[in-house]
Amino acid sequence: MALEQHMLSELRRLVGADQVLTAKEDLIPYSFDGTAALQQLPECVVFARSTEQVVGVLKLAGQARTPVVTRGSGTGLSGGSLPSPGSLVLGLAKMDKVLELDRANLTLLAEAGATTQAIADAASAAGLFYPPDPGSLKISTIGGNVAENSGGLRGLKYGVTRNYVMGLEVVLPEGEVLWTGNKCVKDAAGYSLRDLFIGSEGTLGVITKVLLKLIPKPAAQKTLLATFPQMDQAAQTVSDIIAAQIIPCTLEFLDRTTIQCVEDFARVGLPLDCEALLLMETDGHPGAVAEEAAQMERIARQNGATEVRVAKDDAEAARLATARRSALSALARVSPTTILEDATVPRSELARMIRFVAAVAAKYQLRIGTFGHMGDGNLHPTFLTDERNAEEMHRVEQAFQEIFTEAIRLGGTITGEHGIGVSKKSFLPRFAGDAQMRVMRELRRALDPRGILNPGKMFDA
Amino acid sequence: MALEQHMLSELRRLVGADQVLTAKEDLIPYSFDGTAALQQLPECVVFARSTEQVVGVLKLAGQARTPVVTRGSGTGLSGGSLPSPGSLVLGLAKMDKVLELDRANLTLLAEAGATTQAIADAASAAGLFYPPDPGSLKISTIGGNVAENSGGLRGLKYGVTRNYVMGLEVVLPEGEVLWTGNKCVKDAAGYSLRDLFIGSEGTLGVITKVLLKLIPKPAAQKTLLATFPQMDQAAQTVSDIIAAQIIPCTLEFLDRTTIQCVEDFARVGLPLDCEALLLMETDGHPGAVAEEAAQMERIARQNGATEVRVAKDDAEAARLATARRSALSALARVSPTTILEDATVPRSELARMIRFVAAVAAKYQLRIGTFGHMGDGNLHPTFLTDERNAEEMHRVEQAFQEIFTEAIRLGGTITGEHGIGVSKKSFLPRFAGDAQMRVMRELRRALDPRGILNPGKMFDA
Repeated sequence: MALEQHMLSELRRLVGADQVLTAKEDLIPYSFDGTAALQQLPECVVFARSTEQVVGVLKLAGQARTPVVTRGSGTGLSGGSLPSPGSLVLGLAKMDKVLELDRANLTLLAEAGATTQAIADAASAAGLFYPPDPGSLKISTIGGNVAENSGGLRGLKYGVTRNYVMGLEVVLPEGEVLWTGNKCVKDAAGYSLRDLFIGSEGTLGVITKVLLKLIPKPAAQKTLLATFPQMDQAAQTVSDIIAAQIIPCTLEFLDRTTIQCVEDFARVGLPLDCEALLLMETDGHPGAVAEEAAQMERIARQNGATEVRVAKDDAEAARLATARRSALSALARVSPTTILEDATVPRSELARMIRFVAAVAAKYQLRIGTFGHMGDGNLHPTFLTDERNAEEMHRVEQAFQEIFTEAIRLGGTITGEHGIGVSKKSFLPRFAGDAQMRVMRELRRALDPRGILNPGKMFDA
Repeated sequence: MALEQHMLSELRRLVGADQVLTAKEDLIPYSFDGTAALQQLPECVVFARSTEQVVGVLKLAGQARTPVVTRGSGTGLSGGSLPSPGSLVLGLAKMDKVLELDRANLTLLAEAGATTQAIADAASAAGLFYPPDPGSLKISTIGGNVAENSGGLRGLKYGVTRNYVMGLEVVLPEGEVLWTGNKCVKDAAGYSLRDLFIGSEGTLGVITKVLLKLIPKPAAQKTLLATFPQMDQAAQTVSDIIAAQIIPCTLEFLDRTTIQCVEDFARVGLPLDCEALLLMETDGHPGAVAEEAAQMERIARQNGATEVRVAKDDAEAARLATARRSALSALARVSPTTILEDATVPRSELARMIRFVAAVAAKYQLRIGTFGHMGDGNLHPTFLTDERNAEEMHRVEQAFQEIFTEAIRLGGTITGEHGIGVSKKSFLPRFAGDAQMRVMRELRRALDPRGILNPGKMFDA
């Protein structure tokens, strides 16, 4: 289903000839995203530089019934921006301006292609704070963060992207521009369309502008790294911290495999003789931070921590945080294919889930490094595998089935922060149930009756 | 459109004869809610005591095409639970159990008819905190809070009901039961149907169970009351507090009219020689609270406060908070009809909006007491009027038009926390715009194709 020459010339007239890619070598970089083992060439890539251009592209694509796959920086981990067969990839990374920072109302308005880092920096320059920090924040776009409802390391205390979106400009599939939300802290007028678009993974509209809520920057921060001989001790530490009514901004863990890979990769001086590492950060008022850090250290020691290192200064804190932030890159070095999952369970079930993942790894003879957001119950079992080995990939697939079935059984979810995309599509019906699937299908058909936005993703309309 | 005898006997068989009201004198208490000047008798009132009974009622109503209006305690302020003509009122106030408090995951599960107070109390008994505190919390139901996305006094720091809903059980218009959400802090699986039902005002489904997020109880709290000769000084105080990166849990104001009515009513010893009163509360770590209270006092004095009273203890803090909480009751005593509005603007526009409301009151020779959530930009201009005076009510209507037009012009919303219901229906299209109205209509038709849920409310499907 090659695009007609007529449409291509219309696209070139709309956005400029140099903003339309059609040569195979130019398309290859856009034929995959951050998700392992998924690749599909699009028919063309079109870069928009304004909302009006997005409107134009959607109208042309709609006339020709060409599928449109919106793409930011392509860092997604569920195949959400993988091109559909015969599709036009609509690139928004060039719409990257931070348009306004409103100090009186603590809001920031940006184009969808602005990077998460640019937003965090703009907030910080004004003495403010944008908390969501997905692993790819240096290059991920805010539009992609909103479309996937991205999480990050600070979810426990500060929530996820959804909690910071106050308004959105969205181009609907037929080219109509919709604005939803405003700068008001409270707004009870009408259905929250804003929340419907957040996490809709490019299936309901193209997000072109994002109005974000900022908060005051915490005055102080303290980072601790605790080492445990057993994973259960780390899990119990987390439970005891919450029971002590402390909500730290970060409670991250690494298992033995991940620790070794990180140390090989980043040489931050991690202890190699332990089963679990817990990275703990508290922030806020200096008095509260000092007390909470002392309490967390005590709780970790009571639970058998062999070492608790308290960062002396910002530089050491940054080094310790790097250990966690580099986990995926470190694991990715050791095998040809790295499949990062994000099964998530209620916090109370986390220790059980970690044991289950280890048992599944043994059963299927797979190498899995597990790390993640322990305070959130958001686990990242990472399969170190090789997609060229069909037999091993089959075992990986079976292991997935067991892990997601168990996550659902424990009252959890099949994705905490990566989205459904292509990767979790087959699990969604079992997780969501018939009634939710029916409603989601009806909503999607209502908004995109011709089915041109990201077809085949999330679920079949 | 009287209900058929057959349907009434089916309803009686389903829920018990004593749970179905049809006599006019029994129906009258259900013919209005907390909204002034709105009344409509339903055909019958049916009390459900289980989700299964709700399913049964919706199926029977659907067969007969009888409109269904869901009702909690009937405290709504936009006519959301006003019976539609010929309707069946589905009362949920008897489904009032708190079903589970999960300390490990900091969640609470309740039936929709549990009161907000019961939920706050259950949380408090476990050393936890449920922040949303709508004015009617002593009797309002959590299902009603969710359906209206209720706010309250703590919105600035703690957000509104939406921010605490983790999951919902909803009966869809055709009787299917849907569960959306879970106990996971992060969940990126599928569209957020949960957020679509929050604030949908009984038009998309009947909420039967609510899973709520709780947070640790703040360790300390301090309450201050500042008196200003001019309203602008109070507004500037709020701006300066935010600029100093303080986010207090409460920043409430009362104008002169409201202060006088409250003092007449509650005798809490308010100063009567001022134009504005600012109630400020900070909570959290004791060190942070002490510093923030001192800073807020200094900022208030710098802006011309004639008096800043700091509550010595919890009893005095409660007394000062009562002054604000009794504002509506106090105003309601002085005239036959009290119309409470909730025009809301970005915080930066609040002083301008307060001046505008005062000018409109003068122009139309109306008595308006204004109070509200100054930190949120959420204003409650309250019209003290008499619905029997048609000429005055016409002026009230004109004043509303001007106030909402100005709120929209300033980037605000026509309702911060009361919802659209009947009261704001005529303003919604102008606020939301064509694209949002079209999408909202399509979503409503997709979920309730027969249009039996709360017909005529919010907008015409």
